[in-house]
Amino acid sequence: MQLIIEKDYEQMSRTGMQLMLAEMYRPRPVHMAITGGSTPKRLYQLLAEQLREKPTFERVTYYNFDAVPGMGPEGGDATLAELRALLFELAGIPEANIYALTAENYAGHDAYLASVGGLDAIFMGLGGDGHFCANLPTTTRFENGTHKVVMDEHPELKVVFAGLLPAGATLPECFVTMGPKSVMHARHVVMMATGAGKAEMVAKAFEGPVVPEVPASVFQLHPNFTLHCCWTRRRQAS
Amino acid sequence: MQLIIEKDYEQMSRTGMQLMLAEMYRPRPVHMAITGGSTPKRLYQLLAEQLREKPTFERVTYYNFDAVPGMGPEGGDATLAELRALLFELAGIPEANIYALTAENYAGHDAYLASVGGLDAIFMGLGGDGHFCANLPTTTRFENGTHKVVMDEHPELKVVFAGLLPAGATLPECFVTMGPKSVMHARHVVMMATGAGKAEMVAKAFEGPVVPEVPASVFQLHPNFTLHCCWTRRRQAS
Amino acid sequence: MQLIIEKDYEQMSRTGMQLMLAEMYRPRPVHMAITGGSTPKRLYQLLAEQLREKPTFERVTYYNFDAVPGMGPEGGDATLAELRALLFELAGIPEANIYALTAENYAGHDAYLASVGGLDAIFMGLGGDGHFCANLPTTTRFENGTHKVVMDEHPELKVVFAGLLPAGATLPECFVTMGPKSVMHARHVVMMATGAGKAEMVAKAFEGPVVPEVPASVFQLHPNFTLHCCWTRRRQAS
Amino acid sequence: MQLIIEKDYEQMSRTGMQLMLAEMYRPRPVHMAITGGSTPKRLYQLLAEQLREKPTFERVTYYNFDAVPGMGPEGGDATLAELRALLFELAGIPEANIYALTAENYAGHDAYLASVGGLDAIFMGLGGDGHFCANLPTTTRFENGTHKVVMDEHPELKVVFAGLLPAGATLPECFVTMGPKSVMHARHVVMMATGAGKAEMVAKAFEGPVVPEVPASVFQLHPNFTLHCCWTRRRQAS
Repeated sequence: MQLIIEKDYEQMSRTGMQLMLAEMYRPRPVHMAITGGSTPKRLYQLLAEQLREKPTFERVTYYNFDAVPGMGPEGGDATLAELRALLFELAGIPEANIYALTAENYAGHDAYLASVGGLDAIFMGLGGDGHFCANLPTTTRFENGTHKVVMDEHPELKVVFAGLLPAGATLPECFVTMGPKSVMHARHVVMMATGAGKAEMVAKAFEGPVVPEVPASVFQLHPNFTLHCCWTRRRQAS
Repeated sequence: MQLIIEKDYEQMSRTGMQLMLAEMYRPRPVHMAITGGSTPKRLYQLLAEQLREKPTFERVTYYNFDAVPGMGPEGGDATLAELRALLFELAGIPEANIYALTAENYAGHDAYLASVGGLDAIFMGLGGDGHFCANLPTTTRFENGTHKVVMDEHPELKVVFAGLLPAGATLPECFVTMGPKSVMHARHVVMMATGAGKAEMVAKAFEGPVVPEVPASVFQLHPNFTLHCCWTRRRQAS
Repeated sequence: MQLIIEKDYEQMSRTGMQLMLAEMYRPRPVHMAITGGSTPKRLYQLLAEQLREKPTFERVTYYNFDAVPGMGPEGGDATLAELRALLFELAGIPEANIYALTAENYAGHDAYLASVGGLDAIFMGLGGDGHFCANLPTTTRFENGTHKVVMDEHPELKVVFAGLLPAGATLPECFVTMGPKSVMHARHVVMMATGAGKAEMVAKAFEGPVVPEVPASVFQLHPNFTLHCCWTRRRQAS
Repeated sequence: MQLIIEKDYEQMSRTGMQLMLAEMYRPRPVHMAITGGSTPKRLYQLLAEQLREKPTFERVTYYNFDAVPGMGPEGGDATLAELRALLFELAGIPEANIYALTAENYAGHDAYLASVGGLDAIFMGLGGDGHFCANLPTTTRFENGTHKVVMDEHPELKVVFAGLLPAGATLPECFVTMGPKSVMHARHVVMMATGAGKAEMVAKAFEGPVVPEVPASVFQLHPNFTLHCCWTRRRQAS
């Protein structure tokens, strides 16, 4: 495990951008799954500055690692919509360089990734409950590949999701996500953990037992894992 | 996971040798942990033929991945003694190319491996009970690095070991072994499973849940894992 | 440079097969250009034994590195026809795993290779005059990519080719070949040199100056070059 | 070849830093040769900000690629002295992470590099005359490894050096430099070319013939070469 601790959010965003660029500069087709959310907002601003109009990166394909159908604009997937807003539109990344994991194609996703040689890297956040992608403490099994979770079959998730969404928001009926097995098969796994509130979970996940109740603990076992932390409160660049 | 199924023991030994050579031909220092036991006996005969007097392989360092102090000749480690007899002496491998994991240095083993850049590959067998190295179903925790197991603290192991050793043999007082975390950090993990009796465990370990009670199941999660099987009874070359 | 010297043709063929398999066992799509000719005849017999019915190698694509249109059966390319007879038919390799460089597509060959991430490896022979692929002493320029040579523009080649072909054979009108630049861009370059007659050229090419008059001398500059030699006269397995 | 063209010196310095960090973030010992001179001054300022107090980079070893004995402070090597001033002192890099190529150890340098697995990367500038490291148009032979050049044996170099040094400066008696062969053996070669005056040489070196009279033209042949250009005049950060 490579541990990187940053003094503030701006520096974390800079290093995060450097870690992404380190993958993207390889002289080969590059396959990279990246996270949405508010944490990488500044990272993607910085990255977009580097990417705009640079033909160097034509060989990079970007992937979402989960999808929440029906929750995005016009009833589409929420995750991909977020990535478009945060990075793809900002950086002018063509559609041909984006591969969408969806509720329709998820069952063939791991086989597809294998056919292109696997993911070079996946960049994720760490949830306060130890989740990554949409692998939550109650639904995680280490042997899961990319799979679909139907909310009606997991009543406890409604409570979890209700806490993540604005009051009154409609809950999704289902979601798809890369599972622990799929994510572990990436050649480089990078996890970002920001805010003082994450320190306890970081200790639990990376110094404690490797158990599915702490989903992120599985990355203790990865041969090329980078844990990227910043304990200070995030101050976003406007 | 890369799955290779062989028609007989001779062919398995040939492919096993090829997989080892594939690591050894890299134009860099190569660090490789290898298994003792009766399964690779023919493999090592074939490999020794290739290695004798070939300067090409001067940059390879060989490691044992477990040690049973006091059980080898003259009270030394049994595993390393076995590797010497099976391969090192046969192939004329100099002492300088052998790194011994011992009951004395085990606590620093993972840090040492990290300092040389990690293991390029580890070649192991699969136990009928799902064990690998000396990670047994009752003592395995996925978060274990290289560690020592004292037999008096695990009474159930005395039964296990008694079944593995000749009648009347003295049991070891302790052993050291690379743990699941250490093994998972190798860049390539190769596991050999031979004999009809292993088919059931292969199915359990690689199609079932990833749980410490089936230690080898953890390799479902490795980004570069090769499962090398032969279902026929082994017929050893004399 | 990695230098491997073999005691006889049989051992050279075995090591050659191991070097090819070392590329083919990678857990990714593998792109590999291989040589025709009589030298690898035994190598391909051994390799075919390993490949037949092994699904492990479905992700390997095989390339020819030169083509002589009109000189093969039914007026096709002679090189590819030779590879079919020597390996592809023997090993049961499907058409989908063969990529043919031809007199029609050569101009886009280097760009195509770049789009798939480049060749993982190229296996070639060494000509007695220092040539590799169809880069001959009089026509070689190090900056050449994959290109076409029209015989009428190089009268001296008619003498060279006449010496390579049976008496009375028709000479080709042109040929296409990967050039020094294209070959150098492969991640691993392997050159076989067999027979006592090659020893002098090996010394000239790999201990002397790097000049286009000795085309193979360029491989002194490759970061991952393997020179595979056998000085005894070849005795082919029947 | 990967071509990156920057709009200004500041952006070039940022990308240059990212390219260096891309090497340095690898989860292994990293061996990296870097250039002195005025071009990377801003790059090293930015890099030093990232490196200070970051334990992540403890496994990186830095190399100079040439040395001019007697021309540095107190009669030492000028190149290493420059690197100390530009980067090592600024970034707080410990002596243990610096490997000095000198007039004393140069003869064993290539063997030493091979023993540690080779350079991961080398970062160089492009001279207006096409030189790299201290491989000048009149003294370059592609087959040269790390070697020593004695000025008295190359009268023409006195003119070259006189043009590079302040008026009245003493000329060095000799210098040592990695040669084309040594540099080509690095796994990644990065060349920086800055200023409008370099455009002509870039075209000559990378679109023209590969000949020792244009030393940098050899990099057309490298499987992993990055050409990093900025045509605007450099404006250095103070």
